[in-house]
Amino acid sequence: MRALMMGAALAALAFSAMADAKTLVVNANGFTLDSMGRLQPFESLLISDEGRVERVIKRGDKPPAMSGPYTRLDAKGLTVLPGLIDAHGHVMGLGFQALTVDLSETKTLEEALGKVKAYAEANPRARWILGRGWNQVTWGLGRFPTAAELDTAYSEKPVLLERVDGHASWANSAAIKIAGVTRATKDPAGGRIERDADGNPTGVFVDAAANLITSKVPPANPIEAERALGKALDQMASLGLTGVHDAGVDAETWTLYRRFGDEGRLTTRIYAMAGGMEQLEKIAPVRPTGWLYDDRLILRSVKLYSDGALGSRGAFLKEPYSDDPENKGLRFLDDTRMRNWMSKAMMHGFQVNVHAIGDGANAQVLDAYADLIPAYGSALRHRIEHAQVVDTADIPRFAQLGIIASVQPTHATSDKAMAGDRVGEARLAGAYAWKTLLDSGARIAGGSDFPVEPANPFYGLHAAVTRQDRDGQPPEGWRVGEALTLTQALAAFTTGAAYAGHAESLVGSLEPGKWADFIVIDHDIFKIAPGELWKVKVQETWLAGKRVYLRGAPTAPEPAPDAEKPAEGAVETPTS
Amino acid sequence: MRALMMGAALAALAFSAMADAKTLVVNANGFTLDSMGRLQPFESLLISDEGRVERVIKRGDKPPAMSGPYTRLDAKGLTVLPGLIDAHGHVMGLGFQALTVDLSETKTLEEALGKVKAYAEANPRARWILGRGWNQVTWGLGRFPTAAELDTAYSEKPVLLERVDGHASWANSAAIKIAGVTRATKDPAGGRIERDADGNPTGVFVDAAANLITSKVPPANPIEAERALGKALDQMASLGLTGVHDAGVDAETWTLYRRFGDEGRLTTRIYAMAGGMEQLEKIAPVRPTGWLYDDRLILRSVKLYSDGALGSRGAFLKEPYSDDPENKGLRFLDDTRMRNWMSKAMMHGFQVNVHAIGDGANAQVLDAYADLIPAYGSALRHRIEHAQVVDTADIPRFAQLGIIASVQPTHATSDKAMAGDRVGEARLAGAYAWKTLLDSGARIAGGSDFPVEPANPFYGLHAAVTRQDRDGQPPEGWRVGEALTLTQALAAFTTGAAYAGHAESLVGSLEPGKWADFIVIDHDIFKIAPGELWKVKVQETWLAGKRVYLRGAPTAPEPAPDAEKPAEGAVETPTS
Repeated sequence: MRALMMGAALAALAFSAMADAKTLVVNANGFTLDSMGRLQPFESLLISDEGRVERVIKRGDKPPAMSGPYTRLDAKGLTVLPGLIDAHGHVMGLGFQALTVDLSETKTLEEALGKVKAYAEANPRARWILGRGWNQVTWGLGRFPTAAELDTAYSEKPVLLERVDGHASWANSAAIKIAGVTRATKDPAGGRIERDADGNPTGVFVDAAANLITSKVPPANPIEAERALGKALDQMASLGLTGVHDAGVDAETWTLYRRFGDEGRLTTRIYAMAGGMEQLEKIAPVRPTGWLYDDRLILRSVKLYSDGALGSRGAFLKEPYSDDPENKGLRFLDDTRMRNWMSKAMMHGFQVNVHAIGDGANAQVLDAYADLIPAYGSALRHRIEHAQVVDTADIPRFAQLGIIASVQPTHATSDKAMAGDRVGEARLAGAYAWKTLLDSGARIAGGSDFPVEPANPFYGLHAAVTRQDRDGQPPEGWRVGEALTLTQALAAFTTGAAYAGHAESLVGSLEPGKWADFIVIDHDIFKIAPGELWKVKVQETWLAGKRVYLRGAPTAPEPAPDAEKPAEGAVETPTS
Repeated sequence: MRALMMGAALAALAFSAMADAKTLVVNANGFTLDSMGRLQPFESLLISDEGRVERVIKRGDKPPAMSGPYTRLDAKGLTVLPGLIDAHGHVMGLGFQALTVDLSETKTLEEALGKVKAYAEANPRARWILGRGWNQVTWGLGRFPTAAELDTAYSEKPVLLERVDGHASWANSAAIKIAGVTRATKDPAGGRIERDADGNPTGVFVDAAANLITSKVPPANPIEAERALGKALDQMASLGLTGVHDAGVDAETWTLYRRFGDEGRLTTRIYAMAGGMEQLEKIAPVRPTGWLYDDRLILRSVKLYSDGALGSRGAFLKEPYSDDPENKGLRFLDDTRMRNWMSKAMMHGFQVNVHAIGDGANAQVLDAYADLIPAYGSALRHRIEHAQVVDTADIPRFAQLGIIASVQPTHATSDKAMAGDRVGEARLAGAYAWKTLLDSGARIAGGSDFPVEPANPFYGLHAAVTRQDRDGQPPEGWRVGEALTLTQALAAFTTGAAYAGHAESLVGSLEPGKWADFIVIDHDIFKIAPGELWKVKVQETWLAGKRVYLRGAPTAPEPAPDAEKPAEGAVETPTS
């Protein structure tokens, strides 16, 4: 039941919760964390009519005497946790990815063509059909696929599909025509157009040649952006994310979030970071916005960049790359500008969240904080996003300066081979070093960096606890000394992320007065083997005492301008 | 007392009205209009704790028995009217104008220099000091002023002051230096740099030469925009405007309005028209926003342009200009595009408001409406903005199609000489023809087009009733047959404007259930000579039962990030 996503017509319904009845959750195998990070089990939850936790009842404690009508949720012994919070994701990126065809699981060319056809039919408003993930090797094709083959799936509008490795794109004839590519078109520098014996393009464009087509894809229009946000919210709710810290929004995205807020469609709380100083000025010059829509949206932080990424050797290192001895990576901001921007943001009351991957970048950001925090204080809870490769000598500075390390456990298990190549064994001592950070007294917040990694927070819990990928590699765990306990990992995605978003009094744990944001999952994460953690499925997601996701329930249709009625769904019957 | 403008710290206060006490207005010489446009006197108003009219009490009727604490406003016999609504203004334009130095009343060069100096000192954050309205003839100077003279007033930052006629600009040395203008700079085509005997620029730049300097003025930053909006809201409240239809907002301005709404600072209700289809898509694709902030902000209409202005001969006429026989003016949109845009907006539920000045433009827009309204209906209350020169044969089509004529009475009295030159006597029959429009059964809404004209709505009432300018010219009134009665004029700025903004059930008159938006003025407009109407001063302005303006009260300082307390002011003491 995703009635909250039904749009304008339901705005009144969604926010009339105050007039609603109380809710009692019973038979839960519940766990929450207290302010000391200790696990607290519970069996039952009493939720106020406005959607806040009223009482947390432990097994054996007397259940509350209910008078008047109320909603009853029988958890049937399933595990109940606080709603999870992703402290670093890209909401619109997730949504736009969801608007493309995913071919990564296809086993044959025919299966891929079928998926493209089905997607095109299901999305008649799409101007281009975009996709990704194909691999002719997996298909056993022995050659690249062709435009003519893609035309048999869909030829009316342009189709463009990126190969699994991102190094080639497969277009249909309509796309090639729009791009104006013919036999006369020369291969661009660094790229190759696949051709037949006569020199005609056959449909695949390798490396820089792909740009001949991708440059013709129109930017998203606001209606597509609205659809993308709907998809992202659907997906986050289905994964048990009741909160997300959006790592860089622009003014147009902010306006879109406002529309969804106005219409009661924000089913995940969004703690937005302005994407740079210019966007900060456009959205909220001078001061933060304050919480909007019953604590579902706020902008009180700005995202800055100190360096690039490790894979592309854009991360800034103190010493050269181990696999590129002339190269230390890229510094995106000089020290002066970083201090100027930081102090401007701090003066106006904004939290500063700086992307830093390499040890050089982390040191640069810590140096800047060290210069400014004596003047501006640390109450704004400034952060380093990623804190991926840190000089072990710099690790204690996080705790000393009150800087939060906003980390993404799945990055470690995705990057493990590459990271060793790039920085070598010695520097790995301070890489993805979550346990060392915690032991040093630093606070951490857990995230995924979706859509770079999957948005599923159970993948993050799994990676944090096992230091393995989802194939169980390496069997002993990669640098397993930095693994977290499951309670620590859960804290990173609940209380830790809430703290990093100045929201620990509102969400992150199930305690009286906080919003009743919780999830019901299909396994007890404290009983299953750690290697199985990533397989956990969310059965229900509740936000402010209202269910926003029920597994297996039909997805609500996209809201139409004339939508007047909520979708049918498994609404609980009030019980008296 | 403008406590509502105090910013974030007061948001809670401003919108906690529901918990407030009732208000009783007594001893009022009150007038409101009923749904038939008839004047209804009253003596007392009972206002609910949430700010709505609860009872309207006539002279001789028994006043309500009050129990519990309430706020009492003794109008002391002054005239009380519904808050006035400007159906066509440019809010940000008004605000930015207020951030410049007004030299139009200066009598000497010294006085002008003093004003510039005082302004620069009072606005230390201004990056450029901008102004307008100087006239060396009025000063009896016998020559243009110089940069050196302006430097004596202010030399630290660039100063640029436009002459009263807009045909010359006076710069200080800092501005000239930024522009890089020297004796080596040649006069541009269509412009002249004033120079001394050695050829050095002396400080005044005529016509196209002014662009050498104006092109260096940086665009407003968001902080300046915020200050401008604050000024515009201050000014509107002081003029008795409780509502405005903003004739064209972009996405950035919308975001700014949202911030003010979030912070409880919208002291005038803003019915925003998106400035064109692109901005509409950015702000509210697919469907209108709905009323926000207790009916203080909405976007459910789009502004389009059919032609230009009469003075510059950009208005599109059916036949050539009387004073330019080869020229019919400019058509801004072809018929097809106009219909495409209109139908797209109508499909998504938006009111369409098209700027049309010339009789050709008015006919073009009416033709388009005539084609589309059979399919889409007229419930969205489409409008023509200005409806300035209309072929008398086209006038009945407004009523037939349900099109609202959104007119600006002061345009008539400002344009009267020029309009006759441009279109000649015969075509004036349908020009500024408010009475003929009303008699034809059309609905009209009154506005000012500020800052093109002054924002004072009493200027509009005066022009509508007298057809004279504020010097009383012409003594018999210009085309006085088109004058409105005062009741009709008041309706145009209250109930008529409310209807044109789909808000007649919320505002525009003082009737039970509507918001208590009202003004207290210093004269009884029904007793003073019509020629005096423009001199009426607003004593108090109330919005939703809260006072947002009191004449003579100190202006609240601009909100600072740390503003914590409301300004001192003449807050009524609750009486029990």
